[in-house]
Amino acid sequence: MPMYVVGHKIPDSDSICGAIALAYLKNQIDEPAVATRLGDVSPETAFILDRFGFEAPALKESYAGEEVYIVDHSELTQAPDDISDATIVGIVDHHKLGDLTTSTPLECWIRPVGCSNTVIKMMYDFYQVEIPANIAGIMLCAILSDTVIFKSPTCTTADIRCVEALAEIAGIEDFKALGMEMFKVKSAVDGTPARDLVMRDFKDFNMNDNLVGIGQLEVTDLSVFDNIKADLEADIAKLKEEGNRHSVILLLTDIMKEGSEILVVSDDASIIEKAYGKSLTDGKVWLDGVLSRKKQVVPPLQDAFA
Amino acid sequence: MPMYVVGHKIPDSDSICGAIALAYLKNQIDEPAVATRLGDVSPETAFILDRFGFEAPALKESYAGEEVYIVDHSELTQAPDDISDATIVGIVDHHKLGDLTTSTPLECWIRPVGCSNTVIKMMYDFYQVEIPANIAGIMLCAILSDTVIFKSPTCTTADIRCVEALAEIAGIEDFKALGMEMFKVKSAVDGTPARDLVMRDFKDFNMNDNLVGIGQLEVTDLSVFDNIKADLEADIAKLKEEGNRHSVILLLTDIMKEGSEILVVSDDASIIEKAYGKSLTDGKVWLDGVLSRKKQVVPPLQDAFA
Repeated sequence: MPMYVVGHKIPDSDSICGAIALAYLKNQIDEPAVATRLGDVSPETAFILDRFGFEAPALKESYAGEEVYIVDHSELTQAPDDISDATIVGIVDHHKLGDLTTSTPLECWIRPVGCSNTVIKMMYDFYQVEIPANIAGIMLCAILSDTVIFKSPTCTTADIRCVEALAEIAGIEDFKALGMEMFKVKSAVDGTPARDLVMRDFKDFNMNDNLVGIGQLEVTDLSVFDNIKADLEADIAKLKEEGNRHSVILLLTDIMKEGSEILVVSDDASIIEKAYGKSLTDGKVWLDGVLSRKKQVVPPLQDAFA
Repeated sequence: MPMYVVGHKIPDSDSICGAIALAYLKNQIDEPAVATRLGDVSPETAFILDRFGFEAPALKESYAGEEVYIVDHSELTQAPDDISDATIVGIVDHHKLGDLTTSTPLECWIRPVGCSNTVIKMMYDFYQVEIPANIAGIMLCAILSDTVIFKSPTCTTADIRCVEALAEIAGIEDFKALGMEMFKVKSAVDGTPARDLVMRDFKDFNMNDNLVGIGQLEVTDLSVFDNIKADLEADIAKLKEEGNRHSVILLLTDIMKEGSEILVVSDDASIIEKAYGKSLTDGKVWLDGVLSRKKQVVPPLQDAFA
C-alpha cells in the first residue's frame, strides 16, 4: 500500500506542487507514494501544472486506515477530516507548529523558510536524488508564489539559492518573468464569483479556541478589485454567518505596492485592531508592507487572542 | 541573547548529551546557544560526562521570554513549565509528535530513529561542521543508551551507521564494551531510595486527557531488584496517590534477557491489560521482548485509551 502525500485544504501551489515533488522523491527511494489533493486547484496552480506538463493529483478526501505524508501545514483544521484515523508518517512544512499529533514516531522536515518546496529540495539533496526538469519547474514556481518573487518577508537566502538551482535544472533563463506571468494569471479575478475568490486561498486557524478564517488574494494591481470589493465584503459577512467563526478576514495584497488591504468581519473587531495597531474604517484598513499571512498577519493576531 | 538548548524533564543521556552536542553545533554556525537541563543527571549520564570530560549543563527551569531549542520530545508535559511564554525556535526529536505548538515558524528535525543524537549527527552533516572527539563520544553513548546497544526495536540502520562513524571520530575501538560498562553503571540500584529509582527515567504522557506516568529502569540482570521490588511497588502506589495520574507504570527492563516486567498502579488496570494482551498478577506481568517504552509500551496504551 502506498503512502498518500497531501497538502492542506483549499490547496495552494505549494501544497499541490509539493505533493507531486515529494511523492516522486519517495518513489525514487523505494517508498511507494501517491500525490493527492484536498480540493480544487487554483488558476495559478493550473497554469503551473499546464506549463510543465502535469495533471493535477487525484482528489481524495478520506484517509482512514492509510499512511499519509502531510505537506505545507501541521494544523488539524487544514488536514483531512479523518486524519485521526490515519497514520501520519511525515510532515514537510515551513509554518508554525500546529496541533497535529501522532501516536507513533514520524519524520518532520520543518524549516523557517519561505516555502515547503525549499524544504523538499533539501530532502532531494539529503537522499541524493536527481530532480527531473519538469519537477524542478513546478517546485520553482511554488517558491516564487509563496515568496511573492522574493518580496515577502518570509523569503530567506535558502529560498533564493533554491530557486536559482531549480532554474538551472529546469532550464529556465528568466525565472522572474515566469513569476510575473504567474502572478498575472493570479490577478485575473474578473467574472469569478465572490465566494470562489474568498475561498481561493483561505485557511482556518484555531486561535485560543476561536476559529478565525483568513483568505488572501495576491494581485499585481489592487484596482482589479474596484468593481467587486463590495461583493467581497458582503460575501465574507455571509460566510461568517454560515459558520461558527469568530472572525473572517480577507487580505487583498498588492505585490507591486507591497502591502495589503484587509477586509474584516468579526465578533470583536477590537482584537483585530489591537493585533495590527490600526483602526478599521467600514471594516477595512490598508496595512503597508504586509505581504505575508504567515509571518505578518497570523502571529500578531494569535498574540492578540492569547 | 543566546538560545537555550534543553531536553526533557527528568533528563536522560539523550537529553543531556544532545543539548551539549546541539549547542556546540549552533555556536559553530554563529547562532549563540547554551545547553541547559531541567533536572538532575542520572548516574549513567554522570558516567558519560565524566568519561569524556564534560560538566553537566546548568540547571535552568524557567524560560519565559527566552528562545528555546527543544531536544528529545515535543510534549507539553515534558517541557519547561513556562514554555508557552518562551519562543520555541526548533525541535530535534525521534518520538511521536506531541502537543507542543508555536505561534511562529520554527525548525523541526524529527526522524523515526533510535535516538535524538542520531538526528543531531545529521544536522552536523547538513551544516558540514566537524564533530570534536569528546562530543562524538557523548553522542555515541547516548545512542547506545537509547538503542540498548542496538537491541531495542527502535534501533535503525541509521543509528548503527551513526555510532560507527562517531566511534571513528572519538577513537573508540570497542564501543560495545563501552556500552556494557555504561549499562553496568545504570544497573547499580542498591542503596538508592525507591523514589529516586522510580523517577530516574520517568515520563508523563497525556493519553486522551488521562495523565499516565511511565518510568523505566534498564539493568543487565533483573535479580538486582529482588530485594527492593516491594519498595518500588509501594512507592509507585504512593506516587499515584500524591498526584492526579490515572496510572503509574514502572518498567523493569532486563537488557540481556530482552524483556520487561511492568509494575502497575491504575484507576483502571483493565486498560493496561487490554493494551498489552496480558493479565496482571499482583499488579505485575512479564512482557517478553519489550525493551522500548516509546515503541512498545506507549503506542498500544495510547490506542487502548483512545
